[in-house]
Amino acid sequence: MNRVYNFSAGPSMLPLEVLEQAAAEMTNYNGSGMSVMEMSHRSPVYDAIIKQTEADFRTLMNIPDNYKVLFLQGGASTQFAAIPLNLMKTGKADYVVSGQFSGKAFKEAKKYGDAKCIATSEDKTFSYIPEITPDMVREDADYVHVCYNNTIFGTKYPEVPNVGDKVLVADMSSCITSEPVDVTKFGVIYAGAQKNMAPAGLTVVIIREDLMGTAREDIPTMLDYKTMADNDSMYNTPPCYAIYVAGLVYKWALKNGGLEAMKERNEKKAALLYDFLDNSKLFKATAEKKYRSMMNVCFVTGDEALDKKFCKEAAEAGFVNLKGHRSVGGMRASIYNAMPTEGVQALVEFMKKFEAENA
Amino acid sequence: MNRVYNFSAGPSMLPLEVLEQAAAEMTNYNGSGMSVMEMSHRSPVYDAIIKQTEADFRTLMNIPDNYKVLFLQGGASTQFAAIPLNLMKTGKADYVVSGQFSGKAFKEAKKYGDAKCIATSEDKTFSYIPEITPDMVREDADYVHVCYNNTIFGTKYPEVPNVGDKVLVADMSSCITSEPVDVTKFGVIYAGAQKNMAPAGLTVVIIREDLMGTAREDIPTMLDYKTMADNDSMYNTPPCYAIYVAGLVYKWALKNGGLEAMKERNEKKAALLYDFLDNSKLFKATAEKKYRSMMNVCFVTGDEALDKKFCKEAAEAGFVNLKGHRSVGGMRASIYNAMPTEGVQALVEFMKKFEAENA
Repeated sequence: MNRVYNFSAGPSMLPLEVLEQAAAEMTNYNGSGMSVMEMSHRSPVYDAIIKQTEADFRTLMNIPDNYKVLFLQGGASTQFAAIPLNLMKTGKADYVVSGQFSGKAFKEAKKYGDAKCIATSEDKTFSYIPEITPDMVREDADYVHVCYNNTIFGTKYPEVPNVGDKVLVADMSSCITSEPVDVTKFGVIYAGAQKNMAPAGLTVVIIREDLMGTAREDIPTMLDYKTMADNDSMYNTPPCYAIYVAGLVYKWALKNGGLEAMKERNEKKAALLYDFLDNSKLFKATAEKKYRSMMNVCFVTGDEALDKKFCKEAAEAGFVNLKGHRSVGGMRASIYNAMPTEGVQALVEFMKKFEAENA
Repeated sequence: MNRVYNFSAGPSMLPLEVLEQAAAEMTNYNGSGMSVMEMSHRSPVYDAIIKQTEADFRTLMNIPDNYKVLFLQGGASTQFAAIPLNLMKTGKADYVVSGQFSGKAFKEAKKYGDAKCIATSEDKTFSYIPEITPDMVREDADYVHVCYNNTIFGTKYPEVPNVGDKVLVADMSSCITSEPVDVTKFGVIYAGAQKNMAPAGLTVVIIREDLMGTAREDIPTMLDYKTMADNDSMYNTPPCYAIYVAGLVYKWALKNGGLEAMKERNEKKAALLYDFLDNSKLFKATAEKKYRSMMNVCFVTGDEALDKKFCKEAAEAGFVNLKGHRSVGGMRASIYNAMPTEGVQALVEFMKKFEAENA
């Protein structure tokens, strides 16, 4: 078999049993005589797949009935435009810039109205999450936008930010389904699926029903949440196969104890790595302790050449995609739900050995 | 195995050997130790996949160097907005409405400027393609938009419409790669991939380079062709797995003789079905002869109850998804590249038998 431990930030590891089931069902899904890739999205057999996928996702995330789940395309980057186009009713929105993607979301929103950055951690290379209090939010802002886990810098909100009675919108691309969240505290949660849920090409949006139907008139129809909700994500052909794989992943997560169990396992995995880093003389974690991501663990040796050597030797030993994002360098171990504890244990052992050899 | 003959209009049949290869490579692609679904889109192994996919597509379609190929998301429906947002420089564009999707494209364009319907076949339920001559196009129109094959009504342009020196934009979702086309006659060709090329979730755009860079300032970044071209379709994470399957399909098409061979085989398949229909006392093709689609063959018995009986019995015999689009009823056999000649032969035999039994 020779599977590697894949620490890619996304697309990233999927549970092996999910891949094996997808392979087994590839030419004939459940006696249908065809692949899920070949099914009409309006056929009863596919309808059962997408409905079950949504039902399992709702169970997993404990999504209340007054929230719609949308299966869309275009990635979080498309949502950066969709959010202001749908939600900027008064034309004002407040943004927290805690990394590269929240910066992009803020920049995109400025195209469509008065978007204001109310807090940023740019002063310390986004190594922490700025604190938010309700008084920082403008009285007439339509919403406050945050990126809940910053993939590139390895930081995460330690708790749901307090924005008072304002609508909170969160990009959860790199932490969704990693632990339970109280959906009722958010107006919109969105996520590219390619980190913790499915292959790339699927974007999931969870939106409170009362926030739909107020989009700008000139919004591209495909970005209008109400259109997509009214058509159960089938205004046009959805990314059927990615939705099917997401469904297999949700079933896997439920079978393995749901999000409480995911959280427990993810905390254990992250602790293994951070504990080692905190005690290492060679490696150093880059994010402030309080704001450390459970999903993306960023670290450096302080020596670029040594970072490079580490990534190269790690890859040769079967620990791949440990290079940090091209904009920041260093290393990043992304340890999403599908990364087994043994993968992190083995990585720590390898790092110990590397440290001893390069002391 | 028990594979059915799947006449779905899209998503639709894929070559069995493509599905088998995808299944075989599912948990470990080419010794990488991971699935294509799990690969970082910026990794060398994935970079080789997307580059080879583009190269094979360029060979297959004979795409000149001054055209860019973009691998996008959102389906043709997203392009209905992207086209005017990118190309309406003077604010005027002319549309031919030859079916439901071209009607949707026209309606969407009206959001962004002075879109004019210069010809339509709505008077005869879109059973033909209206003739276009250069004098019908407005002098200052930025482009003329057509839908080259109308999936729902089973019609196709018999030749490239003559729009003089104007930029011709064509939605080729349901006929791309079914036969050779002279790309140089078009400014933009776009297609949802889920009919003739790949699973749903991938949209391919072929665009002449000089047509990029003039998008409206408030265009969503993800819809800006120049942004996508400058980043080789990797401004954000592309639909990696759908691109990989498209690559397998392109290799299959090249191995089987390229688009000349596809055309020959498709003509033969379509002739088998239309010849039967033209001689049938029970069934009748709905599209005018001159404009018949090679990909979507629409027909009726003239009796709704009998149509229903036919679809039911056909499905039981392993000929599935023959029901016409919910907006028009009747029957539709979509016979894309991946439908083998034997599938059409077997369907004709079944139709003969049904006709004899229901005379």
